[in-house]
Amino acid sequence: MADRRDDHTSSELRHDWLADRWVIIAPQRSARPEDFAHTVVVHSDTSSCPFCAGNETDTPDSVASYSSRSGNGKQNGRSSGWQVRVVPNKFPAVIGKQIRIDATAQEHQPSKKLVGDPCNFDLFRRRDLSGGHEVIIESPLHVQSVTELDRETVSLVFQAYRDRLAYWRTERDLAYAVVFKNVGHDAGASLAHAHSQLIATDVVPHDVMRALQRMEEYHDSQNACLFCRMLADEVEQKLRVVERTSNFTAFCPFASRLPSLVTIVPNQHVSSFESLNSDGLNELAWLTHRTVRRIELCYPNVAYNFVIHTAPQAKEQSPAFHWRMELFPRLTRVAGFEWGSECYINPLPPEKAAQNLRAATK
Amino acid sequence: MADRRDDHTSSELRHDWLADRWVIIAPQRSARPEDFAHTVVVHSDTSSCPFCAGNETDTPDSVASYSSRSGNGKQNGRSSGWQVRVVPNKFPAVIGKQIRIDATAQEHQPSKKLVGDPCNFDLFRRRDLSGGHEVIIESPLHVQSVTELDRETVSLVFQAYRDRLAYWRTERDLAYAVVFKNVGHDAGASLAHAHSQLIATDVVPHDVMRALQRMEEYHDSQNACLFCRMLADEVEQKLRVVERTSNFTAFCPFASRLPSLVTIVPNQHVSSFESLNSDGLNELAWLTHRTVRRIELCYPNVAYNFVIHTAPQAKEQSPAFHWRMELFPRLTRVAGFEWGSECYINPLPPEKAAQNLRAATK
Repeated sequence: MADRRDDHTSSELRHDWLADRWVIIAPQRSARPEDFAHTVVVHSDTSSCPFCAGNETDTPDSVASYSSRSGNGKQNGRSSGWQVRVVPNKFPAVIGKQIRIDATAQEHQPSKKLVGDPCNFDLFRRRDLSGGHEVIIESPLHVQSVTELDRETVSLVFQAYRDRLAYWRTERDLAYAVVFKNVGHDAGASLAHAHSQLIATDVVPHDVMRALQRMEEYHDSQNACLFCRMLADEVEQKLRVVERTSNFTAFCPFASRLPSLVTIVPNQHVSSFESLNSDGLNELAWLTHRTVRRIELCYPNVAYNFVIHTAPQAKEQSPAFHWRMELFPRLTRVAGFEWGSECYINPLPPEKAAQNLRAATK
Repeated sequence: MADRRDDHTSSELRHDWLADRWVIIAPQRSARPEDFAHTVVVHSDTSSCPFCAGNETDTPDSVASYSSRSGNGKQNGRSSGWQVRVVPNKFPAVIGKQIRIDATAQEHQPSKKLVGDPCNFDLFRRRDLSGGHEVIIESPLHVQSVTELDRETVSLVFQAYRDRLAYWRTERDLAYAVVFKNVGHDAGASLAHAHSQLIATDVVPHDVMRALQRMEEYHDSQNACLFCRMLADEVEQKLRVVERTSNFTAFCPFASRLPSLVTIVPNQHVSSFESLNSDGLNELAWLTHRTVRRIELCYPNVAYNFVIHTAPQAKEQSPAFHWRMELFPRLTRVAGFEWGSECYINPLPPEKAAQNLRAATK
């Protein structure tokens, strides 16, 4: 299928099959004038950075630490000479199960699924939330972006992702875990020092469940995995592929909500990120490094996020769920229209984004 | 129902009935340290501001202009001495219908509803989008916030909202229109001069349709409007009400995704904003002014948005749809977790937000 809008001067709607949502691709919006000079100044006093080597007492004790000298991760111990370190978040969004002195608690069901319940018309439903919230500190040095890490360290970071996701999978009553990374103020980071986060919860968030249901619906009807099919089409069309390695493909999805969003998927069907072996981890770690580098060459010093979508608990072997990673620079802001309609306006067609990223090499 | 979490030290989940989505209320998150000093410098050369009086030729011709001297809005004409002026957006996200020389166009259905079609498994669906995109310029002077406008001018702005929404309702084949306002860089504004926007489309965005279906589901089952019921409960509980006037109530919803989000609804069931009479418009305009003032007293110079959710076309008389307005300061940023799960973490319990806003008076 050829791109029928080579001029890129008017809007079109594209359907995001997974989210079942239309996105407005509006290239003419990118010519708008801008009144605001936006500057972010990074606090540079590293002596007070809780993630720097030497300040380990400013964080809770580590639950795992990694160094290439020791070869493997050393879990549940304190380690000096670490390269990567995992600690509980000091300001967690989610915490472990507690005994509450609370006679009026309304809902305590340990339900692993939490999808809309059409029979419940209570407008003030609340329930406890339990799980975990960890920080993966990616370097003893005060660097910010993943591109400032060497190849070996990025591999250790990805090893930590795998180990911690695998750990939280074994926790009883937990239903979901996600690894994500916020780099820079506009991406939601509060600390500059390179780090990622893991949140595990005893409920599957509603939209994650909805996406899973969409993948199952696709599989049931088409007898194929949605992402396996999409990947085959993307590789054939070539328009939106950024880079392809032996085991992974990085591409800009057809109906991206955000400009220059890149999805990385394994070429073979696998449901859970945690099943990656060491070679796969190393290959993915370095592809991620290169993809962020491409993004930074196109947009120097840009804030960005990435998110690893692995199968929720109980779906690790699903023929419908294909794990994926999404990376996206934060070039646009969510404004009133998006909050009002949840319909996103993307000023950069994904074909153009992929072309720019392919051309960006050091 | 009493608030069972007076300590506000741990997370809980709250269910947003309308969106059918759980929100994490995590007050302990607000104590996090912050590395980034974030400054936005506003371009102050008003001679180049296209919205300032004297620069009218820098925008397309106005489609309506308002002045208290003439009493009523003068539509479809040029006017000097204007207080409020409506012009087509020079960089529109959506434009009017065009004849396209395009033999491969795939979907041109004028369908007013565009909900997920479970039978369509095409991963690369696209369609044309048509409609309109207008800018409501709220003052001839280079002011930024609605709180810098006098009472009379705010009323004219709301009169413009009503007139333009009513105008787009009469346009054939259009399905949906929304008025929204972005103030400040963090709220997605690109120009500083006080303005709002209207976008009209020939499709109802997916999530707007889903919300409408939820309201209809509630109505069918409970034989009552969702917002009428919620309003009665809020008024009885008092915990989250910010201010109540003869015809409107401003409150912080139970499951707010964002801190200090305020919803304003009419006390009587009405589906469309456009049916407001002059007295209602004036009362709402001044309540909006006061609510933004409360927000600004709590958070000086904060960026904020508001959105007016009026009934989609063909639902103007719906017993299920209650029009509403949402206002929210932009205090948090959408980070990796939210993008990955669409589950929002709100560090400020709505009860506390309402208490702060009630206390904020000049």
